[in-house]
Amino acid sequence: MKKQVALGIDVGGTNTTFGFIDRDGNYLADGNILTQTHEDISDYLRELHYEIEKVTDTIREKVDIVGIGIGAPNGNFYKGTIEFAPNLRWKGVVRLCDLLKEYYPQLPIYMTNDANAAAIGEMVYGGAKGMKDFIMVTLGTGLGSGFVANGQLIYGHDGFAGELGHVIVAPNGRQCGCGRLGCLETYVSATGVKRTAYKMLARYTAPSILRTIPFNDMTAKIVADAALKGDQIAIDIFKYTGKMLGEALANAVTYTSPEAIFLFGGLTKAGDLLFKPTHDHMEMNMLKIFANKVKLLPSQLDKNAAIYGSAALVWNELKV
Amino acid sequence: MKKQVALGIDVGGTNTTFGFIDRDGNYLADGNILTQTHEDISDYLRELHYEIEKVTDTIREKVDIVGIGIGAPNGNFYKGTIEFAPNLRWKGVVRLCDLLKEYYPQLPIYMTNDANAAAIGEMVYGGAKGMKDFIMVTLGTGLGSGFVANGQLIYGHDGFAGELGHVIVAPNGRQCGCGRLGCLETYVSATGVKRTAYKMLARYTAPSILRTIPFNDMTAKIVADAALKGDQIAIDIFKYTGKMLGEALANAVTYTSPEAIFLFGGLTKAGDLLFKPTHDHMEMNMLKIFANKVKLLPSQLDKNAAIYGSAALVWNELKV
Repeated sequence: MKKQVALGIDVGGTNTTFGFIDRDGNYLADGNILTQTHEDISDYLRELHYEIEKVTDTIREKVDIVGIGIGAPNGNFYKGTIEFAPNLRWKGVVRLCDLLKEYYPQLPIYMTNDANAAAIGEMVYGGAKGMKDFIMVTLGTGLGSGFVANGQLIYGHDGFAGELGHVIVAPNGRQCGCGRLGCLETYVSATGVKRTAYKMLARYTAPSILRTIPFNDMTAKIVADAALKGDQIAIDIFKYTGKMLGEALANAVTYTSPEAIFLFGGLTKAGDLLFKPTHDHMEMNMLKIFANKVKLLPSQLDKNAAIYGSAALVWNELKV
Repeated sequence: MKKQVALGIDVGGTNTTFGFIDRDGNYLADGNILTQTHEDISDYLRELHYEIEKVTDTIREKVDIVGIGIGAPNGNFYKGTIEFAPNLRWKGVVRLCDLLKEYYPQLPIYMTNDANAAAIGEMVYGGAKGMKDFIMVTLGTGLGSGFVANGQLIYGHDGFAGELGHVIVAPNGRQCGCGRLGCLETYVSATGVKRTAYKMLARYTAPSILRTIPFNDMTAKIVADAALKGDQIAIDIFKYTGKMLGEALANAVTYTSPEAIFLFGGLTKAGDLLFKPTHDHMEMNMLKIFANKVKLLPSQLDKNAAIYGSAALVWNELKV
């Protein structure tokens, strides 16, 4: 009997990766193309389809594809569109699901944004298995999030719910790419860590390895490495980042009262440097009825997480 | 044929009111007792049962009671308990649903807090009919809220989700009854308006009717009346209240992306004095993808809203 698999596609700013994953999380085959080669979405999809078919050929006799899941920046679950994604060449509203449907008319196709896909990935394959209420926070260049309540992802009225990165945490605070001031992701993200580094270097006089590095070369990883070597400014940068995240999570808990909050992405590699101050400040600011109830956990998705998340979207929808 | 009705019970700090309401919102009969007479919950329930039976006798031949819904401060949906409610005489955890079940073993009994009940009331009987994603904000002595996503109330992992009144909006801000500083309800509630009044009177020198009123006699209604008469300080108090609420709602939208936000309670009687600045500041602070999408509406529940909300809990659960 053929094995049922979902095709997960992750549309990233640079690469588009895809893979075939079964219900139990077994990873069968994958491939990728460059996202930015084609200005025309039709050319992009023609190449993507060609690559997918090539990979499918290697496993076609063993598998039965049950659906396609896509994670994409500003991906809209209800409409199957990518809308005004700042990091993609395709401008305005792109009807990605409809266009892909022309190649795969017989398959259900689902799309959402990358953080929501990660949340569903965590629920289907990761640490949130069996949980009905949790929050997924993805820490990359920006801060994304997915909220699950009553066992369902919260898409909201328009399909764009769960933008924790754009909660304003500091009125008149740091300038954000969204055009406003003081959004959480200007403090808590790889970019936020970098901005905090320069703020700290400006404010304090302590010597630091970081003083030798120009703004454009600074990364969150450099800060983490310095902190692990005992650099006090670098340690304080993570303390500040954790404070901002912890305070924001304490507020987030009052909305959906989750069982757990998962942190995912490059920044979480800093480990306790990030988790400890985040947890401390979350509990310090928690409303009493929620105190010491909410687990703060690292995501259990790792390699190919974006593809797992996208594929999980299919299993999650077919289950309903 | 007998008409199916739900029994809605609202446990308030002073009065407990109840009523029988059918699926279409027809109100058949009601009654009430004092909440605080009995220190012992068993005595309270004996009196409540006695009164309910008395009222039931007047309609018994016409109706078939299908369930009991209860709205109570700190009411927990999952456990059927009232937990550590500051304004009730019964301390600790009270197993209200279990105890009431002894009188009505054949009926399903549901309980949640008052703001969640109001949200369900709005969905079953009010302006949120047919909506899948909305937020209910109740403005009384404090600020309560209920969040509905995917057509379901968000109870959260422990049954206590939806505490918008305890989102911290001003770090190191006003002292809150919850033991923390800067919670939204210290600014946006009848009590918040009163506190803002004294802040404004201290800060500005303009003459105001409000300067003749001692703190303990001040009410939000007095401020609203003064504002309607053109008192500039009073007008500014509502502007400030609306600013704080509008900013908080813009953030709330990023979580659940609702179709509408309903405002309910005494403070909403101030009408445009409150709604206009709230709407303005909500839009001013809104993430672009949500701009001009979210309706800000007055609740369509009015008289006996708490009983409607409690009864609606039954219809909402039986529908599933």
